Amino acid sequence: MTDPIPRTVSWHAGQVRLIDQRALPGELRFVDCATVDDMCNAITSLTVRGAPALGATGAYGVALAAGAASDARDVRDAAARLVATRPTAVNLAWGVGRAMDAYERGGAEGALAEAERLADEDVARNRALGAHGAVLLGDRARVLTHCNAGSLACVGYGTAVGVIRAAAEAGKRPRVWVDETRPVLQGARLTAWELDRLGIDATVVVDAAAASLMGAGEVDCVVVGADRIAANGDVANKVGTYALAVLAHHHDLPFYVAAPTSTIDLDTPDGAAIVVEQRDEAELTTFAGVRVAPEAVGAHNPAFDVTPAALVTAIVTEQGILRPPSAAPLARFVRGSQA
Amino acid sequence: MTDPIPRTVSWHAGQVRLIDQRALPGELRFVDCATVDDMCNAITSLTVRGAPALGATGAYGVALAAGAASDARDVRDAAARLVATRPTAVNLAWGVGRAMDAYERGGAEGALAEAERLADEDVARNRALGAHGAVLLGDRARVLTHCNAGSLACVGYGTAVGVIRAAAEAGKRPRVWVDETRPVLQGARLTAWELDRLGIDATVVVDAAAASLMGAGEVDCVVVGADRIAANGDVANKVGTYALAVLAHHHDLPFYVAAPTSTIDLDTPDGAAIVVEQRDEAELTTFAGVRVAPEAVGAHNPAFDVTPAALVTAIVTEQGILRPPSAAPLARFVRGSQA
Repeated sequence: MTDPIPRTVSWHAGQVRLIDQRALPGELRFVDCATVDDMCNAITSLTVRGAPALGATGAYGVALAAGAASDARDVRDAAARLVATRPTAVNLAWGVGRAMDAYERGGAEGALAEAERLADEDVARNRALGAHGAVLLGDRARVLTHCNAGSLACVGYGTAVGVIRAAAEAGKRPRVWVDETRPVLQGARLTAWELDRLGIDATVVVDAAAASLMGAGEVDCVVVGADRIAANGDVANKVGTYALAVLAHHHDLPFYVAAPTSTIDLDTPDGAAIVVEQRDEAELTTFAGVRVAPEAVGAHNPAFDVTPAALVTAIVTEQGILRPPSAAPLARFVRGSQA
Repeated sequence: MTDPIPRTVSWHAGQVRLIDQRALPGELRFVDCATVDDMCNAITSLTVRGAPALGATGAYGVALAAGAASDARDVRDAAARLVATRPTAVNLAWGVGRAMDAYERGGAEGALAEAERLADEDVARNRALGAHGAVLLGDRARVLTHCNAGSLACVGYGTAVGVIRAAAEAGKRPRVWVDETRPVLQGARLTAWELDRLGIDATVVVDAAAASLMGAGEVDCVVVGADRIAANGDVANKVGTYALAVLAHHHDLPFYVAAPTSTIDLDTPDGAAIVVEQRDEAELTTFAGVRVAPEAVGAHNPAFDVTPAALVTAIVTEQGILRPPSAAPLARFVRGSQA
């Protein structure tokens, strides 16, 4: 069965094909990268974004370089250039590293095989995660989600959206409230587009409307992704996630986090140890070139927030569900994924 | 002392002068209306908006018509046309009605005097409200506000912003977190502009960031306005207000509502009796002509939400502070304002 959403990144006739996420939701357009320069441009221009997607993109970038290079030094240079495009994206460096190891062992063919394996693993992991999570949703469950933890953030299938689509595939007819997710609108632009392609009922709301939907009994549960999960179960995710967790708690609704075990960072003891990245004020103060706040007034634009484990009903991973999340089973899951 | 923010609506050399709110925050521009047609266009195009501001605008519109009309029928026709521009805006009809009554008694001169009186009353009421509310803020209080309950929503001074500026005038140096307030961004566009003109420290945030600011101990209290207050103290206000009330409660922070007693509607027993107006989906799905959600996906765009009285720490009015708000004292305040 063809997936209604093509893979975010794939190998296509000797080139790397990317969904151009800048053109969404208006148009499903692809960018075919023939060179490592093309790849670097695609990463810096945010044609491709999302931690798991960047991991696979880096690996395919090495495969591309290996196929064209006259010697190993060229490939190593290309790998360094790829990593430098988004120096803080740990998944990118990880994907590049995996493909480089394979290249050193098995040449260009080895690098490509490793990139394909990494991409297939991502999709398989998300499908397993989705299948575990789908049991949490009842028939016609009304699910609220935030940002894009979907196929476009990964190679395919998605994490939070993966739970919803697995429920749909199981015949449960979920209905989704999609937080638009300011300031970059990944919910309105990307998640709503994915759900539409999947034939899943979706309605976009402003982030601030979630509370009144819950108050009116229009929400059965919240499902979100995660950027990082600390050893104690605290969850860093897109700004606004913590607000949803508090609101779900107030309205006695389950709050689920869907993330592969690779998101659990045992070196981060708790949420207090997570440094929240501040992004450009212009994301808030301008829109489509139009100034929406006075020049003289500053903006505070944290990329994410931290939700304490106590507000998380369960964490859904490819290895199963942790309810409630706590340190010992999280560590066991991480060890399980490394076994 | 000249107010750093001119009146939203005023009489100027035989014409009605309006701040063009569509040009903000980019430019402080005025629209001078010479005819009732000009006034009607200004109201429908949202050059002027905000319930108290529309009341005064309607009254000045009658004064304009009365000055130009050859007989009373022309003035009554003009009044009907003014009311028809925003049929659900009760303040508009109320302001038109007050000026028409004055016209019937005292002609064009009577209508203009009544419009001026109504405008002066608005500013005086907001100043009194601000003075009462200012005592709730400590020195260097970090106040979070939502939408625009400022001078621009009234004739002058503002309600929630009035509390903040009265605190500033008392030397308390408040600092304000301004929710941008999706979808129409009245916080970023209007409230931030007002605070900048007033020299009050302001920082714009996405609505979804309020929770993490509270969690980080960066907020001392929330102050918002109200569209309507029910007899039991439930508060209807811009969508997102209820979310802030729940979040303030969770973080043990005071949640204040600033509104003149004319906002209290004793005919509305409680929040359940308030019908929430749904606004155009395009406010969410497009921005500055750019499509930000897929064509096929719908949006849910409630104009406001309802905060139960139990989550309101106090209601600040021109007659004093109600803490906690409840039916009997609310009714007493309403009767007091009508005495």
